[in-house]
Amino acid sequence: MRAAAIRTLTLDAVAAANSGHSGMPMGMADVATVLYAKHLKFDASAPDWADRDRFILSAGHGSMLLYSLLYLTGYPEMTLEQIRNFRQWGAITAGHPEYGHAPGIETTTGPLGQGLATSVGFAIAEEIQRARFGRDVVDHYTYVIAGDGCLMEGISQEAIALAGRQKLSKLIVFWDNNDITIDGKVSLSDCTDQPARFRASGWDVQEIDGHDPKAIDAAIAAAKKTGTPSMIACKTHIALGHAAQDTSKGHGALTDAGQMQDAKAAYGWTTGPFEVPDEIKSWWEEVGKRGASEHKAWQDRFAKISERRRTEFTRAYDLEAPKQLASRVRALKKQITEEAPKVATRKSSEMALELINPVMPETVGGSADLTGSNNTKTGDLGTFDVDNRKGRYIYYGIREHGMAAAMNGMALHGGVRPYGGTFFVFTDYARPAMRLAALMKIPTVFVMTHDSIGVGEDGPTHQPVEHLAICRATPNTWTFRPCDTVETAEAWELALTSKETPSVLALTRQGLPTVRLEHKQKNLTAQGAYVLAEATGKRRAILLASGSEVSVALAARDLLQAEGIGTRVVSMPCWELFEDQDEAYRRRVLPAGPVRVAVEAAGRTGWDRWLSGERGKWNKAGFVGMDGFGASAPAGTLYEKFGITAEAVAEKVKALL
Amino acid sequence: MRAAAIRTLTLDAVAAANSGHSGMPMGMADVATVLYAKHLKFDASAPDWADRDRFILSAGHGSMLLYSLLYLTGYPEMTLEQIRNFRQWGAITAGHPEYGHAPGIETTTGPLGQGLATSVGFAIAEEIQRARFGRDVVDHYTYVIAGDGCLMEGISQEAIALAGRQKLSKLIVFWDNNDITIDGKVSLSDCTDQPARFRASGWDVQEIDGHDPKAIDAAIAAAKKTGTPSMIACKTHIALGHAAQDTSKGHGALTDAGQMQDAKAAYGWTTGPFEVPDEIKSWWEEVGKRGASEHKAWQDRFAKISERRRTEFTRAYDLEAPKQLASRVRALKKQITEEAPKVATRKSSEMALELINPVMPETVGGSADLTGSNNTKTGDLGTFDVDNRKGRYIYYGIREHGMAAAMNGMALHGGVRPYGGTFFVFTDYARPAMRLAALMKIPTVFVMTHDSIGVGEDGPTHQPVEHLAICRATPNTWTFRPCDTVETAEAWELALTSKETPSVLALTRQGLPTVRLEHKQKNLTAQGAYVLAEATGKRRAILLASGSEVSVALAARDLLQAEGIGTRVVSMPCWELFEDQDEAYRRRVLPAGPVRVAVEAAGRTGWDRWLSGERGKWNKAGFVGMDGFGASAPAGTLYEKFGITAEAVAEKVKALL
Repeated sequence: MRAAAIRTLTLDAVAAANSGHSGMPMGMADVATVLYAKHLKFDASAPDWADRDRFILSAGHGSMLLYSLLYLTGYPEMTLEQIRNFRQWGAITAGHPEYGHAPGIETTTGPLGQGLATSVGFAIAEEIQRARFGRDVVDHYTYVIAGDGCLMEGISQEAIALAGRQKLSKLIVFWDNNDITIDGKVSLSDCTDQPARFRASGWDVQEIDGHDPKAIDAAIAAAKKTGTPSMIACKTHIALGHAAQDTSKGHGALTDAGQMQDAKAAYGWTTGPFEVPDEIKSWWEEVGKRGASEHKAWQDRFAKISERRRTEFTRAYDLEAPKQLASRVRALKKQITEEAPKVATRKSSEMALELINPVMPETVGGSADLTGSNNTKTGDLGTFDVDNRKGRYIYYGIREHGMAAAMNGMALHGGVRPYGGTFFVFTDYARPAMRLAALMKIPTVFVMTHDSIGVGEDGPTHQPVEHLAICRATPNTWTFRPCDTVETAEAWELALTSKETPSVLALTRQGLPTVRLEHKQKNLTAQGAYVLAEATGKRRAILLASGSEVSVALAARDLLQAEGIGTRVVSMPCWELFEDQDEAYRRRVLPAGPVRVAVEAAGRTGWDRWLSGERGKWNKAGFVGMDGFGASAPAGTLYEKFGITAEAVAEKVKALL
Repeated sequence: MRAAAIRTLTLDAVAAANSGHSGMPMGMADVATVLYAKHLKFDASAPDWADRDRFILSAGHGSMLLYSLLYLTGYPEMTLEQIRNFRQWGAITAGHPEYGHAPGIETTTGPLGQGLATSVGFAIAEEIQRARFGRDVVDHYTYVIAGDGCLMEGISQEAIALAGRQKLSKLIVFWDNNDITIDGKVSLSDCTDQPARFRASGWDVQEIDGHDPKAIDAAIAAAKKTGTPSMIACKTHIALGHAAQDTSKGHGALTDAGQMQDAKAAYGWTTGPFEVPDEIKSWWEEVGKRGASEHKAWQDRFAKISERRRTEFTRAYDLEAPKQLASRVRALKKQITEEAPKVATRKSSEMALELINPVMPETVGGSADLTGSNNTKTGDLGTFDVDNRKGRYIYYGIREHGMAAAMNGMALHGGVRPYGGTFFVFTDYARPAMRLAALMKIPTVFVMTHDSIGVGEDGPTHQPVEHLAICRATPNTWTFRPCDTVETAEAWELALTSKETPSVLALTRQGLPTVRLEHKQKNLTAQGAYVLAEATGKRRAILLASGSEVSVALAARDLLQAEGIGTRVVSMPCWELFEDQDEAYRRRVLPAGPVRVAVEAAGRTGWDRWLSGERGKWNKAGFVGMDGFGASAPAGTLYEKFGITAEAVAEKVKALL
């Protein structure tokens, strides 16, 4: 009857919405009931308690499982009204669990495999925080429910292998082994021996009846004692007790009134829709209070650590950057404007990190097997490993997608600020997790080097041309493409002070001259775009550029000015932040009238936004960039052959004048 | 010494380019030598022979392995000059193997895991073609070399599981088990027991010394006899014989002259750079001719099948559509203009396929576990399975990425035209393979349903807002967003007659009215955009829309015309094809002067290209669409709440006038 409360709430909510997924919550209700009642460390009245266990519903379509649990155990925001408004406008009970809608939703899930891969980051963050602050302050588990879909998605392999390699023993995954997918039986498309697959990557595996409370309880208890991550394969019946049980029809919305009634009768459920008998609700509310004393004990222990450590702990959870961040960035900027080195921005990024990481102990770096290329590892980080949980650098392996999801998990867990690197073109591999970072409003930092045809000989498979457009088209994503070390340092400062927006740093492989030669305390990149070089004489042209093409634009300006054509150069390291400026500023930077030519070693998509005048004031405009995929040759040759040169920019301006 | 030819050519080419990856070809040279010398069925003088075995270098960074083999065995285009120009502008010897650069390069590789996943499609296509045309015409193997990186990428799991489930016994994968990645030892990031993992998905696994020719030969012979796909784990030494052997340094470019000399000495190699001793070259050229007699025998057998079947076989390989395709599409269009049903375009797509599939036996459909939602399975296809290799519908499982790559493999293999479905938002999961389809110029068809907030209750994780921009930003990709059944049928006709461009069909979940009410034989979608409804009276506004928003634009036109504002509606089902029209046509469709307002239930990125006047003729412009992520609620509510309505469009026009 206790688990039946989940099943009936699910049936009722899905029926009211006339959409949703009934079968999964009905199948996994027993597992969830035992987990919440006997194991999950949580206090419904304090859902943000830092040392709570995390519960992640990777099979996010079964969102009513989570919403039911939150309602039943008495999370304050999860009212019955919200349950009744499942999947309706303004409700916190979205079709799939949305992070930020309500406490108790630890991460957004729905795109399959993401929750499982994100959970690896939660478990890593817990290890790091525990090593740093001690078991008295940090000591909790991460529990996951994953379905067949999660395990079929490729990202699951990256997650499983990474967790196994790192022996994340506090990660416990329940596999909802119900043999059913949308198209039919799992056997239609898969014959994988999942337990064997998990074992192959170093996991402990148990196989149980997912409807046997004692077996569930015992399996969880055993899983806690292993020195490895644990997978508990739970043989379940999808849509248990319903006419659609064990069928693919049971996966979706079960709204037939008669069949619902029959299912409820089978559970012995006699109350009306959305009505949970008092004794059942009371029992669940006691479950919600079960962790209160443990929470109190934790508070007492937390109060005993030094104030400095308490402040440090809280500062990182609150995403407050340390004061030294700004001063270190300013110092680097000053030094660079004086020395004016020619350096690749991936190297600039390393220079910034070398100064930042020592004063920002919450950063956790990493790379998907391109450490030396991404320049993501600084001297002080140490390597995160089984015997060094204080290590702040993670070798993610060749797993861009798993890395991105794990970083999201770390950011969601709190206390750490993850950044990780790969080649910019492999944004493609990491996309689903990068999108979730944007949607969840978490400040994950993606360090994407080798950002254009500047990659050179590796050729078109490794040369992004559409990826700036992809990142810029994604809502709530800061796409930084800094033009030199000064802008790179500024971008890092913004990325590491962001609270609600993930950042992509698109960095060059090839060396770039320093173009910010005058030191300014102010972070100009924060404005998104700014006047880097003013026209001499009458302003007849404005050149817009980002990253490696800013120096191309400056050289084009020299050519044009030599012919008496007054030319302004605008550096645009972050379109999104420029959009955020008031219109007056935007018009000051991009006044109507002069010819505009943008230059970027990428496709044109999106540039017309800046080439066409604001508010209908018109100007002639052109673009110098890529018109298709790249090619394999030395970078300098490619810039020549594809016509991304100062001469080409100057010619374009003159043709338009 | 025979394998040493590969190793020395690799060293010399990488040294000449001063970039590239030496270690992998040096490590796998023995495996490749045995494969080409004793097993691979090929005729270097006829590299396009349809029944050749396919060799796929999934570890594409080791491209010099492939180029060396093609040069040594005498493929006509792979001259020594090309080897000398490795990674240089205009050479066919790109940094990573590029499909289309030279015969013998079966697919583009480099992004890790892609070759392995693509190979599954090759093997599927072989099964289908063999079932259809018989062993006399189709009977060949697909061989793959995959590295640790390929196996760490998540897509590998999707590929392995799909191949295992389908018992693709003619797929043989060599794992270059060298324990090294770029960042160091594999153990830094992985502890997976790869043989156990493959076995868990039903593969046969052998483990051998990858430098022992007899063991390699025996393993390949054994692998051919299994009833399952085979993985041969080859223990190898990366950069064998070089000072950097067995180190991560050995992975990259080994250009030190002294060390190169020492390595060559260790091989007993005494000739100069790029010089292969005559007897070695002759031996390899004999290898290249080994398959000639078998090729001749095949030609004889092929000549014996009926002319009708020969023509049919060749037609599909040549990507010539059957004549009935056009007539069937026209018939559907005529019927629809008469009946004017209200129907979701995903259903329109099914209606088109129901007519097309019976007359186009080369189509192979499928879905990543969303068959009933994507409407991709038609009545006549049958299910591809172990006991029904003639089945033309594939249950790919929850594997969008693996599906996309497998479809690429089928398209590359030839003889079949693959299309497959998932939700449009999961373009994210399939992106790396979709990009490769565009780069390789192959006509894979991606059926992407549920293409906007019209998804409704499933919420923002399932609602694409940036994905149209993503597809449109990708070079050589036709992004179709048809507005009704007529345009959907036209899009299918274009997708299935394409020879060099992949297609994305972005289709609605929700019903749409038929707006093409006048039958035209001509395929208007082929023009990319066209005038759907002309202004009555003086033309003061042009509304631009795609897909589900075309009917919104038509309703807005009604509102505006009622107020005497002459309004044209332009349907834009495919920007790329509109770009391909001559300027005169584009200006006829979008003349300068009138206010332009675009409406699309997606982000604005890219629209400014069409909102700003061509050639500097100016007009006021606006956009009605999405400004961020979606939300969970019924679709109609979302359109209202996000302000994507006829009223909002009309208001925007009036505000601009």
